[in-house]
Amino acid sequence: MLRLCRQKNERGKGNDTLVTTDFCLEGVHFRRDWHPPDAIAYRCLARGLSDIAAMGGRPVAAFLSMALPGNLPRNWAGRFVQSLIKTGESHKVTLAGGDTAESPHGILLDIIILGAVPRGGAILRSGARPGDGIYVTGELGGSAAAIRQLDKNPASKIDPSDYPRHFSPVPRIAVGRAIRERGLASAMIDTSDGLSTDLAHICEESGVGAELQQDAIPRAIVGKHSGQVDLELALHGGEDYELLFTAPPHKRIPRRIAGVPVTRIGQITGGRKVLLVDAVGIAHKLEARGWEHFRK
Amino acid sequence: MLRLCRQKNERGKGNDTLVTTDFCLEGVHFRRDWHPPDAIAYRCLARGLSDIAAMGGRPVAAFLSMALPGNLPRNWAGRFVQSLIKTGESHKVTLAGGDTAESPHGILLDIIILGAVPRGGAILRSGARPGDGIYVTGELGGSAAAIRQLDKNPASKIDPSDYPRHFSPVPRIAVGRAIRERGLASAMIDTSDGLSTDLAHICEESGVGAELQQDAIPRAIVGKHSGQVDLELALHGGEDYELLFTAPPHKRIPRRIAGVPVTRIGQITGGRKVLLVDAVGIAHKLEARGWEHFRK
Repeated sequence: MLRLCRQKNERGKGNDTLVTTDFCLEGVHFRRDWHPPDAIAYRCLARGLSDIAAMGGRPVAAFLSMALPGNLPRNWAGRFVQSLIKTGESHKVTLAGGDTAESPHGILLDIIILGAVPRGGAILRSGARPGDGIYVTGELGGSAAAIRQLDKNPASKIDPSDYPRHFSPVPRIAVGRAIRERGLASAMIDTSDGLSTDLAHICEESGVGAELQQDAIPRAIVGKHSGQVDLELALHGGEDYELLFTAPPHKRIPRRIAGVPVTRIGQITGGRKVLLVDAVGIAHKLEARGWEHFRK
Repeated sequence: MLRLCRQKNERGKGNDTLVTTDFCLEGVHFRRDWHPPDAIAYRCLARGLSDIAAMGGRPVAAFLSMALPGNLPRNWAGRFVQSLIKTGESHKVTLAGGDTAESPHGILLDIIILGAVPRGGAILRSGARPGDGIYVTGELGGSAAAIRQLDKNPASKIDPSDYPRHFSPVPRIAVGRAIRERGLASAMIDTSDGLSTDLAHICEESGVGAELQQDAIPRAIVGKHSGQVDLELALHGGEDYELLFTAPPHKRIPRRIAGVPVTRIGQITGGRKVLLVDAVGIAHKLEARGWEHFRK
């Protein structure tokens, strides 16, 4: 969740405050047998930072509410918090505080990120217009591909470094900021729920439709054999934390922004439908089937 | 937890941002068989708002992360959120957003309050000096008295209106603000953990000791027979959400601030000990035995 906060008594120049709050719950958002403490720290922080990135914002401080079960191995909390601080620092975010409690069941984390954006400058989800191009950063489906492997194999058989987008996602903060500073986007969101669901959010809030070109969607290359993920994972797999944005037709969008590849995958339309045009040119309705959090 | 946040690029006049995050977990901070949804909303919001009050701040917005178990009765969430919004409004706080998730076990709530205080004006815990008077608002022990009754009796036998400080605590926002605006306090905290523990926090952060007069401590009057609570509850019972502050000797402290009674209960000393002087004038060491959250 992300929210823009403008304090009533502050006028003129300055910043708007951005606030994100996101639960990371054991058995819902991560599994202790699948995810080492440092991966949980990466994923936990990426959820909030990516939301700030999608508004073109700059993260300012992080807060963590953490409830731990009594039977947790002693070094777990230390490893987790150390990773969280280190990961935060790499994004220039200070872990400024939080709350601790004992959990009756499982590890419970709630990460709060405070961010800033120049007053009135935040990129919203509601600005897409018919004719705008649709763009995505990086590749899609890499995180969900890891879940698929973890579902089939013991975690010990999976090398986290084969699935960096799942185990150590890097939020696109510099990209989001560059997009805002250069005035490129009419609307933006991060791909936390999956392309089909996140695009549906933009369309709904902008009151428009969309048409995606199936062949244009950049599918992640993952695993030991470096294969491309299925189209299904690229369309509906979540937690890639890439940026999905729209841009007016007259804007020249570079192929890379802040070092990250940017791909045009379709365009905004005047209707309210979201369509996927396949390799032979036939348009299919694209349902929002964004990845739901896995369960134990 | 409470934290003061100053954005680096903002200089001169304006506000400092205050951020609080507090878990409210079923079985740790509340019990569903003891607390109706509206009481949980009151208590949840009071935790964060009281922290803001203790810095002399003004709450700006509230955010809620809420994870609910699948088997929760349908109308629970509606009643809880409605109470939270209504209670927030009575303190001029908008519920600005939040995160929702499914909980694997029990109701999980994390409340985040964003507040503001004029730059550099927040009252901290670290300003108490030897010779300062120690003051507390309202009465102490009323919330813990309710827990004691709930422990002994079925919840149906308890009338919540007999224990307002437990079931519907009102944070002392106007009092905290008046204390800041009139420059009365050298240090301040809220009594969320209990007098003995919260006073110990002030002493530790200020590098001082304290001497309390046992007879001066305002004990809550609760229950059907309107009895005064035990000294133990007033000393160590938590969650009364009163304000505990220190003031230099030359400050004249009114008997009421913003309509709430204020009582002088002792004074700050130069040592590092916290002492309780009993009715016959003998000083005892006061251990910080603040109320620990009850368990199922």
